[in-house]
Amino acid sequence: MLDITPAKKLTATIDGLYKTFGEGFETAPTETLDLTFEGISGDRHAGLTRGSGGREPWYPRGTEVRNERQITILSPGDLAATAAGMEIDRVAPEWIGGNILMSGVANLSFLPAGTLMYFDGGVTLAVQAMNGPCRFSGASIAKHYPDREGLDLLFPKVAKRLRGLLAWVEKPGTLRVGEVAKVAIPEQWIYA
Amino acid sequence: MLDITPAKKLTATIDGLYKTFGEGFETAPTETLDLTFEGISGDRHAGLTRGSGGREPWYPRGTEVRNERQITILSPGDLAATAAGMEIDRVAPEWIGGNILMSGVANLSFLPAGTLMYFDGGVTLAVQAMNGPCRFSGASIAKHYPDREGLDLLFPKVAKRLRGLLAWVEKPGTLRVGEVAKVAIPEQWIYA
Repeated sequence: MLDITPAKKLTATIDGLYKTFGEGFETAPTETLDLTFEGISGDRHAGLTRGSGGREPWYPRGTEVRNERQITILSPGDLAATAAGMEIDRVAPEWIGGNILMSGVANLSFLPAGTLMYFDGGVTLAVQAMNGPCRFSGASIAKHYPDREGLDLLFPKVAKRLRGLLAWVEKPGTLRVGEVAKVAIPEQWIYA
Repeated sequence: MLDITPAKKLTATIDGLYKTFGEGFETAPTETLDLTFEGISGDRHAGLTRGSGGREPWYPRGTEVRNERQITILSPGDLAATAAGMEIDRVAPEWIGGNILMSGVANLSFLPAGTLMYFDGGVTLAVQAMNGPCRFSGASIAKHYPDREGLDLLFPKVAKRLRGLLAWVEKPGTLRVGEVAKVAIPEQWIYA
């Protein structure tokens, strides 16, 4: 039997915006983010295409594929749950390369692919996938807790399904801190 | 409680390939399809961006958005169910603008956004959304049954969740009739 769950609408608010400045994995706060079809202008993850990486072992590394991983979206709730699981005070969005900190949606990391976020200022983002936590992000967190050992490898275990979302730009424009978005989840379904 | 269903892998086969030649909505058979990051070379739906349409009333018509609707994928099973529901002999993939006819996956139209299709020849397609049946496709079918009235409006009712998938090119290359694809469904989840 096929049971259809109707689409749901939620609302979220931008608590913080961050981008990379120059080299390096970490991001730094910014009041606005300018988005094109390539992603965040001047950011290291911008581009219409990207080279494939270690998470895609079915491609030779560096294979040119469409870039659907332009933007990293995190939530305060998921970050707090990650910090609690790692028994540390906090995980800052910047440490793990976050671009948008969004509050108001519980279990943000579980928003499915195809979810659309319509921001009041005119930007639309499309969710491509839940992000996967890696030891490089873990190492970035570990740098802030020099008295603790093994945080780099603890992060991938603890942050599974708490690592936020990867998204791409459906409609370009500028995001601002404090801006609100309507979040439209696509029709989901259950085989039972 | 949160129950996690693991990702599943399926296999599908290309039964037919089709593209638009010149003007018009309908497609015509072809032995191969050349794909770039823009979609099908020379096809009317090719492009890195597209103008928004009537299905997106939240945008002024013609708003430039990223083109995630490059390719239409149909299945023999869904087309047969549509024909049965409309009480006609058949619905040909060409009549409703199909580009790829894929067999081997039951309920193809239900493959969720984020599903990846890895073709043996090296192409990867990413599923963006279930397609929605419209009266323009219905009118195209109706032309082939001049003795029947109202088929144009019957199609959107009957073909709901049978209209196939919209997909975009993650990795370019050439598709060939008879080629096989591994179909990887993303992790799904159920709030219960």
